Amino acid sequence: MMKKIAVLTTGGDAPGMNAAIRAVVRSAINSKLEVMGVFRGWWGLINEELKSFDHRSVSGIINQGGTILKTGRCPEFYTAEGQERAYQTIKKHSIDGIIVIGGNGSFKAAHEFYKKYKVPCIGIPASIDNDVNGIDMTIGADTAVNTALAAIDNIRDTATSMERIFVVEVMGRDFGYIALMVALGGGCEEVIIPEKKFDLEAISHNIVQGSLKGKMSWIIVVAEGAARADDVAKKITEITDLETRTVVLGHVQRGGRPTAISRDLALNLGKAAVDCLLKGDSDKAVAFHHGKIGTVDFETAIKKKELGIEDMYNLLKILT
Amino acid sequence: MMKKIAVLTTGGDAPGMNAAIRAVVRSAINSKLEVMGVFRGWWGLINEELKSFDHRSVSGIINQGGTILKTGRCPEFYTAEGQERAYQTIKKHSIDGIIVIGGNGSFKAAHEFYKKYKVPCIGIPASIDNDVNGIDMTIGADTAVNTALAAIDNIRDTATSMERIFVVEVMGRDFGYIALMVALGGGCEEVIIPEKKFDLEAISHNIVQGSLKGKMSWIIVVAEGAARADDVAKKITEITDLETRTVVLGHVQRGGRPTAISRDLALNLGKAAVDCLLKGDSDKAVAFHHGKIGTVDFETAIKKKELGIEDMYNLLKILT
Amino acid sequence: MMKKIAVLTTGGDAPGMNAAIRAVVRSAINSKLEVMGVFRGWWGLINEELKSFDHRSVSGIINQGGTILKTGRCPEFYTAEGQERAYQTIKKHSIDGIIVIGGNGSFKAAHEFYKKYKVPCIGIPASIDNDVNGIDMTIGADTAVNTALAAIDNIRDTATSMERIFVVEVMGRDFGYIALMVALGGGCEEVIIPEKKFDLEAISHNIVQGSLKGKMSWIIVVAEGAARADDVAKKITEITDLETRTVVLGHVQRGGRPTAISRDLALNLGKAAVDCLLKGDSDKAVAFHHGKIGTVDFETAIKKKELGIEDMYNLLKILT
Amino acid sequence: MMKKIAVLTTGGDAPGMNAAIRAVVRSAINSKLEVMGVFRGWWGLINEELKSFDHRSVSGIINQGGTILKTGRCPEFYTAEGQERAYQTIKKHSIDGIIVIGGNGSFKAAHEFYKKYKVPCIGIPASIDNDVNGIDMTIGADTAVNTALAAIDNIRDTATSMERIFVVEVMGRDFGYIALMVALGGGCEEVIIPEKKFDLEAISHNIVQGSLKGKMSWIIVVAEGAARADDVAKKITEITDLETRTVVLGHVQRGGRPTAISRDLALNLGKAAVDCLLKGDSDKAVAFHHGKIGTVDFETAIKKKELGIEDMYNLLKILT
Repeated sequence: MMKKIAVLTTGGDAPGMNAAIRAVVRSAINSKLEVMGVFRGWWGLINEELKSFDHRSVSGIINQGGTILKTGRCPEFYTAEGQERAYQTIKKHSIDGIIVIGGNGSFKAAHEFYKKYKVPCIGIPASIDNDVNGIDMTIGADTAVNTALAAIDNIRDTATSMERIFVVEVMGRDFGYIALMVALGGGCEEVIIPEKKFDLEAISHNIVQGSLKGKMSWIIVVAEGAARADDVAKKITEITDLETRTVVLGHVQRGGRPTAISRDLALNLGKAAVDCLLKGDSDKAVAFHHGKIGTVDFETAIKKKELGIEDMYNLLKILT
Repeated sequence: MMKKIAVLTTGGDAPGMNAAIRAVVRSAINSKLEVMGVFRGWWGLINEELKSFDHRSVSGIINQGGTILKTGRCPEFYTAEGQERAYQTIKKHSIDGIIVIGGNGSFKAAHEFYKKYKVPCIGIPASIDNDVNGIDMTIGADTAVNTALAAIDNIRDTATSMERIFVVEVMGRDFGYIALMVALGGGCEEVIIPEKKFDLEAISHNIVQGSLKGKMSWIIVVAEGAARADDVAKKITEITDLETRTVVLGHVQRGGRPTAISRDLALNLGKAAVDCLLKGDSDKAVAFHHGKIGTVDFETAIKKKELGIEDMYNLLKILT
Repeated sequence: MMKKIAVLTTGGDAPGMNAAIRAVVRSAINSKLEVMGVFRGWWGLINEELKSFDHRSVSGIINQGGTILKTGRCPEFYTAEGQERAYQTIKKHSIDGIIVIGGNGSFKAAHEFYKKYKVPCIGIPASIDNDVNGIDMTIGADTAVNTALAAIDNIRDTATSMERIFVVEVMGRDFGYIALMVALGGGCEEVIIPEKKFDLEAISHNIVQGSLKGKMSWIIVVAEGAARADDVAKKITEITDLETRTVVLGHVQRGGRPTAISRDLALNLGKAAVDCLLKGDSDKAVAFHHGKIGTVDFETAIKKKELGIEDMYNLLKILT
Repeated sequence: MMKKIAVLTTGGDAPGMNAAIRAVVRSAINSKLEVMGVFRGWWGLINEELKSFDHRSVSGIINQGGTILKTGRCPEFYTAEGQERAYQTIKKHSIDGIIVIGGNGSFKAAHEFYKKYKVPCIGIPASIDNDVNGIDMTIGADTAVNTALAAIDNIRDTATSMERIFVVEVMGRDFGYIALMVALGGGCEEVIIPEKKFDLEAISHNIVQGSLKGKMSWIIVVAEGAARADDVAKKITEITDLETRTVVLGHVQRGGRPTAISRDLALNLGKAAVDCLLKGDSDKAVAFHHGKIGTVDFETAIKKKELGIEDMYNLLKILT
């Protein structure tokens, strides 16, 4: 029977992780479980850096970005020795189940660990990139999109006032979600994403055509997984002989207060993860899909996610 | 064949209405339709206040709150004479279809008008209250929730610092959606919504019990459709003899830049509404439901919406 | 010689108090002083609720609203017995000087206490109302003004879209600073402040005249010290027979992340307060005045502050 | 006698320029002047792109970033022919005075033009860099600082969660104001500004020493005029062998809604500029200095501004 669980955050931090930690801890306590917080992801399991959490341990964090448990990559966990040490920590502290808050990299590691040691493990998808397969929205993605959108709104002010061409690079790893959402919501003229071949000659042609008709300002959003803003800008300038400016939004997109959606997801998924462990589930992630909370096997979750882009991409073209 | 359409906004304004107008106008033009903007809702049809819109008419509005078409209630449209005058405007300007951006009150009026005059009409659900039946999310609801949540975050600062009990009234008419989302995301201790009986004796008892254990600050969220903040606060003070403070968030929740979700919905639904008219649909609203864009008949949309509250309400209790 | 000091926050909380605490604690430690944090203002001195603070005690709070020391009113401190008990705490813990972060009420109490017990005491002006005499800007005032301004921007969206008259009540106690700044920055049509007689007949006349020329939306800002929004709105409706809406911004204005100005002031004044104690100053507040950091005697600081309103008030009239 | 004036915005755009335009236009009209808006800065004078503005021309812009008059650099204005053509436009339209909203580059050009043609000209200092000599604060600087500070707050979330070293480059041209304000308000560990020699060996040494004591996250703010973030990060990694991340905030700092301070300055300075023209002043800028509105000669304004950095720089060191 499940008596004690541990919770950890791994991979890149995402806004809402703290709300998820709060939900896991308080849901667990509400179900008479003990709960331990593990620090610095897998590293904390390997190095026995963890401590008991109570109701108060997670007070005042629901609206804070980042993660109070800290996070990071841990190459050691990919070694047999690292995994064994992590397992020893789990045994030593009589931990009956683990909840891993992170992205698909985190789930891959959790899946490997589960196959070997059979310690019940449930994932909670948290990633600004929204790139976890089989689910509609990860914790943090809505916040990152809104942060990037606010930046685009600012850039629009200066692009319009100075009549300039901007190339803005957003995060998202090899997934074009943030770029597409931001380009659409920001009323941007072009978007370059990994899921679609792009043609800088054609874009440059459009810019020149537009400028002949009096359209003087452009914002081109580039997903970091598709190209570098600087390269795109340089090429456009080469072809059109027009000045360009670049902005790389970078890590600003990772932090900040979670939006309502990110908090709401975090709270619901945190509770759902505890419920999963209690009813004996393992090797899967809780997931928000088609408007409902469910689960998705780790094996599915870590597969390459397809972005249903055609509609959104076409919409962008129509609305510009 | 559809050659010219009109678009109007009615009822209370909601952030994202402008993005929807932009999407309607540009999608229509992209499909070779003429499009007219009608001012002040039904009033503009009755009084022939409308004009032709082109691509540029909707530039620079995607991120602006409110509606450039203006909006309002129009009692005259509920009279036979008012409807007849509106119909004469439609005929005079050879308008083949109407797109109505608004809430369920707007759809009710549109439904009546359609039954009488058979002018094709499609609704786009925009309302901060999220109270349109048969759909998951209206344009503007996510923005209003985030605005209210930011206010709650602020109030939390002072509630904690001064160790006070706050009663915060949020909008939502007779639907508890905003209140529930905000209470959950804000880590609030109690929520009072129209969908659930509330017991101020019990709440007061909890407060006293909490204060004995050292819990000194409380935020109680009240949906405007359930009770008035002042009444709730007065009653709690009567029972507990503890000081209370009230905040009525009010119309601040109506305005502001639309969030990514509100913009994205607006753009997708705007396009979808034009497509509906083009393929001969009428008497229904476009709708986001279970993760997809579809439609819902006006007759269904205007019915009382049930809020699936039990899970969220229980979650609030567990997480507090 | 000064060896140990105590810091406390009293009165209403203001954004930037935490940054001030950080600056006091770290400046003190940098000058080889010990420093104790006193909880709940004077109450903590009376009830010996205080503890030693080190460098880490104030980590991560620079951008947080409210005060980690908590605050509140303390009627007991106005009694001889309360003051005596506070003094005993000070003696018991060998505290050589006190830094009081608060508004003019706090300084009045500090001044009385100093006169009686001669414990060196320096004030740091923190108040959203900006009503401390002899200084240009208190910690928190700029944040409150920006928060209120963002609310006004939101209300403007709906006022314009629905063509309505709004009466918006802002904080500021009996000082019109917030109201005037917000009305000016928000492009509001009227402002009602305690420093100036107002005439609702004249305002109503202006509204009617404006509406005849097609001006349909109005925002009238009311300082809480001058009138209640509801009364103003009711009266305007009586006279003009036009619908009005009211918003009372309330405690939302107290919280939130401090602006750059509020943080910058807090850090500079925190350091300056420690320097004052070190060089033997007492019975005065550090102050930002005419672009420089200086001091102002408590006796001056607690006098009624004059708001130089004529220029700003006239400007409002010209710009509307 | 002054009968008609023109207003233009030149150089980089700054938040609050629109509020300044509003104040100029409405103050001028209030003083019975005619007023023309010139588009695209000096270019609009040269190419006769200008039009009459009335009270309504500047409605709804007070809270919008950028400039409705558009702006830009204009090399042609530095030629005798360009200046002559600008002068012809002025004569043709019977313009008696010009108000130039911009930074010190704009004032330099205005000064040259005035010396040659003696057309009365008043400057309004608007620049995010706050680098205009003889004044305390330019329109837009407070907004840019707050925008950068919000970004730093976000980066702090991820820096703390992932225990990383961040190097963040902010704007400011060859002036360290934004960098210093942001580093101080953001609680950053180091700041690199053009006004002060920096030593990456020493910074790296501090980082290593800190990490031995458990301090794992750092934010180093770099003014664009002092160094490139990438170079600084690379060097630190070379010396310390620790991973670093960089963020270049870029043009996001230019846009966005102006803060209360930026709006308030804009409105007061706009009115003051009109008053200056009316009373026959010329060849100077209106200025906020030591808490008051006054003027500064163009000759002084365009000199290199000294940043009084020692106190702030030392404060940063004490508070970290």
